[in-house]
Amino acid sequence: MERKSLKKVVAEIKKHKRFLISVHTSPEGDALGSELAIYYLLRKLGKQAVIINEDPLPQEYSFFPGKENLRIYKPGLKEIDFDCMVILDCTDLSRIGEVQSLNKGNKPVINIDHHISNKQFGTVNLVEPYASSASELVFNLYKEIRVPFDEDSAILLYTGMLTDTGSFRYSNTSSSTHKAAAELLRFNINANQVYKNIYENIPFSDIQILTKTLAHIHRESAGSIAWVEARAKLLRHKKLSFDLTDHILGFLRAIKGTQVAVLFKENLGVRNEIRVNLRSTGLADVNKVALAFGGGGHKTASGCTVSGKLADVRRKVIAKIREELG
Amino acid sequence: MERKSLKKVVAEIKKHKRFLISVHTSPEGDALGSELAIYYLLRKLGKQAVIINEDPLPQEYSFFPGKENLRIYKPGLKEIDFDCMVILDCTDLSRIGEVQSLNKGNKPVINIDHHISNKQFGTVNLVEPYASSASELVFNLYKEIRVPFDEDSAILLYTGMLTDTGSFRYSNTSSSTHKAAAELLRFNINANQVYKNIYENIPFSDIQILTKTLAHIHRESAGSIAWVEARAKLLRHKKLSFDLTDHILGFLRAIKGTQVAVLFKENLGVRNEIRVNLRSTGLADVNKVALAFGGGGHKTASGCTVSGKLADVRRKVIAKIREELG
Repeated sequence: MERKSLKKVVAEIKKHKRFLISVHTSPEGDALGSELAIYYLLRKLGKQAVIINEDPLPQEYSFFPGKENLRIYKPGLKEIDFDCMVILDCTDLSRIGEVQSLNKGNKPVINIDHHISNKQFGTVNLVEPYASSASELVFNLYKEIRVPFDEDSAILLYTGMLTDTGSFRYSNTSSSTHKAAAELLRFNINANQVYKNIYENIPFSDIQILTKTLAHIHRESAGSIAWVEARAKLLRHKKLSFDLTDHILGFLRAIKGTQVAVLFKENLGVRNEIRVNLRSTGLADVNKVALAFGGGGHKTASGCTVSGKLADVRRKVIAKIREELG
Repeated sequence: MERKSLKKVVAEIKKHKRFLISVHTSPEGDALGSELAIYYLLRKLGKQAVIINEDPLPQEYSFFPGKENLRIYKPGLKEIDFDCMVILDCTDLSRIGEVQSLNKGNKPVINIDHHISNKQFGTVNLVEPYASSASELVFNLYKEIRVPFDEDSAILLYTGMLTDTGSFRYSNTSSSTHKAAAELLRFNINANQVYKNIYENIPFSDIQILTKTLAHIHRESAGSIAWVEARAKLLRHKKLSFDLTDHILGFLRAIKGTQVAVLFKENLGVRNEIRVNLRSTGLADVNKVALAFGGGGHKTASGCTVSGKLADVRRKVIAKIREELG
């Protein structure tokens, strides 16, 4: 099936000359890696290409080659001339935010994604839920179209696969993912340096918030729920420059017996507003929990923002998780 | 070079009928995975094989197929009949501890290791510092000897590579490592479950020791050295069932600026004996530091056991690291 979709994407690319590439808001390694790699692919095919995203490149990806080609959307942006849009890593066209408004003439859209919930919104859809990442799909596109990899495309696609598989350990990691990584690592990539740039570059002041938060882990329902809270007092004292949500929740997940891990964080801007981030190790559907409080996400990772005092919000959310755990 | 050494190992295996296999004390994923995989290899070649280790299998590897074949050394163990010893993942024969005493007649030894400091102690040596792990070398031995993999050997060798590369992220991870992982994952391995078994199954009491240890991170030399200590008092209070060395040192490495991470642990058995574990993010050679105190390892991961009071040992080791950092 993928081969057929790949061929359709190749045919669509061949039809056009000028491309507009975009990804979802708050882009991470896979979105940015795959879009820059497809930018290079199109350029090597002699096409014109422009990348426009709603949000900028996060600091940890500042080593990405080609990042100078990332343009940020601004209202009133002068007309962009293009024949075809390429959208990566988005379940829905609305995920690209305001960039949508640039497609006035209903130009054809190539949709490249690996999310099972993808809405098949493209003129041509390369949607493969069994791929680890959008980057793995772009890797396959390079092979199909027979454009050889180089150092730049290799580091971009490798990083996309690395980040979306949590360093080759989530259940989306397949034999093909490792095979692709093996091919890309031949291009003089310092895999350890890539990892360090993204995961081992946390300011000490952030680490101190992390260890202080983790010093008080609470457990409920025979350990199936593990939670911590980050109080405004602590967060105000030290300026947090990294998003440590994943680090904290990863730590709680590592405890034997944890089914659901929760971080309750007092919002620094608004009094009595709590940001709740949830992770499930697989059994519980935390998307349902977040939905009950006006939030959302996936079955295993979700979040919501709840008004109220920290202790009250905590009680309500934990009661809902208990219900979900049955 | 490796090919030549592989051929010599194959020739040596063919010469003998009865094998004794062993690995270093305190064995981890790579030592145990590679020794069980070579056990299966020898059995498939119609050979007799016995595994004897000084220490038992840690709990996190209890999913290992063939673990019932691991025998623990006891003084006065009845004579083991064998023609050839196979030693894995050891820089030195003394690393197997008391098991050494079983080789009375100076039987030939096959030495399979990936440590740069290996003493070439074997009759035949397959020592390749560029391999990620002993498991990657045993993987190559299966290929050389043309014994096909199966689910059991695949999960053992995959786990050995996973653990010794810190989930394919340390600098020992190469294109060949990923290529091998790609081949092994075809054998119906649930990579995510393997990861969970080893890294996300930590008893809460261990996590409490971890968070208490991490609550006091010290930094020296403008943050280039980060260290923590685990005092006997804390370790005695809560029984530690996991080896949390990698977790702790991984945490210290994640701090921006860390060049060397160190854990000083008071030995529970012997008074005034400190176990020192070192990790380098690449620039400093911590093997040299460990060697200076009678230990060893790799450039980026090493350890030594030093007699003395915690504070004294700490001062001496940190002075040596400073010297190494230049």
